[in-house]
Amino acid sequence: MKSVGYYNGEIAPLEELRVPALDRAFYFGDGVYDVALIHNGKPVALDDHLDRFFSSCGLVDIEIGRSRGELTEILSSLPGYADPDIRDFTLYFQASRGIAPRSHPFPENAEPGFFAYITPRAFRDQSERISLITKEDIRFYMCNVKTICLMPNVLASEEAKRKGCYEAILHRGDVVTEGSHTAIALIKDGALVFPPLSNLILPSITRKQLIALCEENGIPVVLREIRLGELWTADEVLSMSTTSVILAAKEIDGKPIGGKAPGLVDRMQKLFFGRYGLI
Amino acid sequence: MKSVGYYNGEIAPLEELRVPALDRAFYFGDGVYDVALIHNGKPVALDDHLDRFFSSCGLVDIEIGRSRGELTEILSSLPGYADPDIRDFTLYFQASRGIAPRSHPFPENAEPGFFAYITPRAFRDQSERISLITKEDIRFYMCNVKTICLMPNVLASEEAKRKGCYEAILHRGDVVTEGSHTAIALIKDGALVFPPLSNLILPSITRKQLIALCEENGIPVVLREIRLGELWTADEVLSMSTTSVILAAKEIDGKPIGGKAPGLVDRMQKLFFGRYGLI
Repeated sequence: MKSVGYYNGEIAPLEELRVPALDRAFYFGDGVYDVALIHNGKPVALDDHLDRFFSSCGLVDIEIGRSRGELTEILSSLPGYADPDIRDFTLYFQASRGIAPRSHPFPENAEPGFFAYITPRAFRDQSERISLITKEDIRFYMCNVKTICLMPNVLASEEAKRKGCYEAILHRGDVVTEGSHTAIALIKDGALVFPPLSNLILPSITRKQLIALCEENGIPVVLREIRLGELWTADEVLSMSTTSVILAAKEIDGKPIGGKAPGLVDRMQKLFFGRYGLI
Repeated sequence: MKSVGYYNGEIAPLEELRVPALDRAFYFGDGVYDVALIHNGKPVALDDHLDRFFSSCGLVDIEIGRSRGELTEILSSLPGYADPDIRDFTLYFQASRGIAPRSHPFPENAEPGFFAYITPRAFRDQSERISLITKEDIRFYMCNVKTICLMPNVLASEEAKRKGCYEAILHRGDVVTEGSHTAIALIKDGALVFPPLSNLILPSITRKQLIALCEENGIPVVLREIRLGELWTADEVLSMSTTSVILAAKEIDGKPIGGKAPGLVDRMQKLFFGRYGLI
């Protein structure tokens, strides 16, 4: 099979996998998830993703009843079920609070739901510049938790797509938070500028990895609020995620932007792909 | 069977019903729902609930590919699969944007997921007064849509339960919005006071029905913002929903409140149960 699905011990082709209707993920969005890469059959930086996953679980009191070692074993085993010629995947995994009749408070003694899948992936061409839109951020005040309650992200993403764009940059009033499915950063005067983490922003793994790479390579990093107006004057605007890595923008809301530090963009991409052995 | 589950044409005992892992409800919370009562084997005020359901679908561009007549037929048929001695149920129904591989924008040509179930119910004793807590409302700015992205509601509800309370009254700063799973109203000086509808409040069916009953019976209704401080001085604080109907509070955050207009509470409850033939 090409895409392998897993749910509580069961393996099936992803498109055939079925899960209990009473999994709280299905009717309450009561679950958290994470996404990592698999390269040459092995998960990439899985520890970082498991750290965030367990942090998400802890922040909303989800007990998944499986150890870090057990999760690592399950997730690492999935490529073994796929067609052997496929070696690079996106790895998705999700835990729900449990399988139980619908009632808002936490269920008692419910079996947690653990869902995972791998699907073949190819990296988007990192040299291709993207177009974005801006959109008011209407999400809840717990965006630091990677929950599956993603309806506002879906709506923002669809609006971007309808306008021929790759991503929507969300902002609360004048302050940029992040994209609908990627983190946002700027390059200005030779430095990378990232919004500070808070309950309004997901702690992006790619952001964390990039900051570490900047430190290792003497590239200045500034952590501070990004104002909406800065998008138009930045040397570069970057959209980052585990699956798209680092993409630089050419246009926001139909206006040309960035393109003033292509050398640094290229350097960051090369450093990143080199560091994680993705080349 | 006692609880009957339905998914895209398939009927099974609810606890055995399985759904595709690729239904977007399961990994994006990308669905909307509604809850109605079934009394003596027939749905109660189903038109009101279908109105709201189709409104929710429209507000987030979910096309369920089934007509109102088809939904009515499916939902009305469910009691026929249950043990014949059970006549009163809670009816839950949910539509998702479709069954498709995970990607934020809307899927193209995906089959919508329609899930429904009935489960036996008994009315909570309407004369039993409830305890509540107050809690800052951290939900997103589209609470007028009955989405399944309910993690903040789950967390607030659990906090109330841990404090021995029935419900959490949510407020944005000084302004009361609604409960984590019920609508909130006051009685003050002989009038029912309801918060005005907005994108921060679900258009409660019980609220709408109560307002109509007040009009029919010459009971004054005031639609205006409710300030947090008013909870302590109101003659009564009410929590309303389709499944719990109208419950009056005795205590909020551990302090005794209300109890000054029990006659009007009792009258509203009797009018409601009489109007909908629930007695």
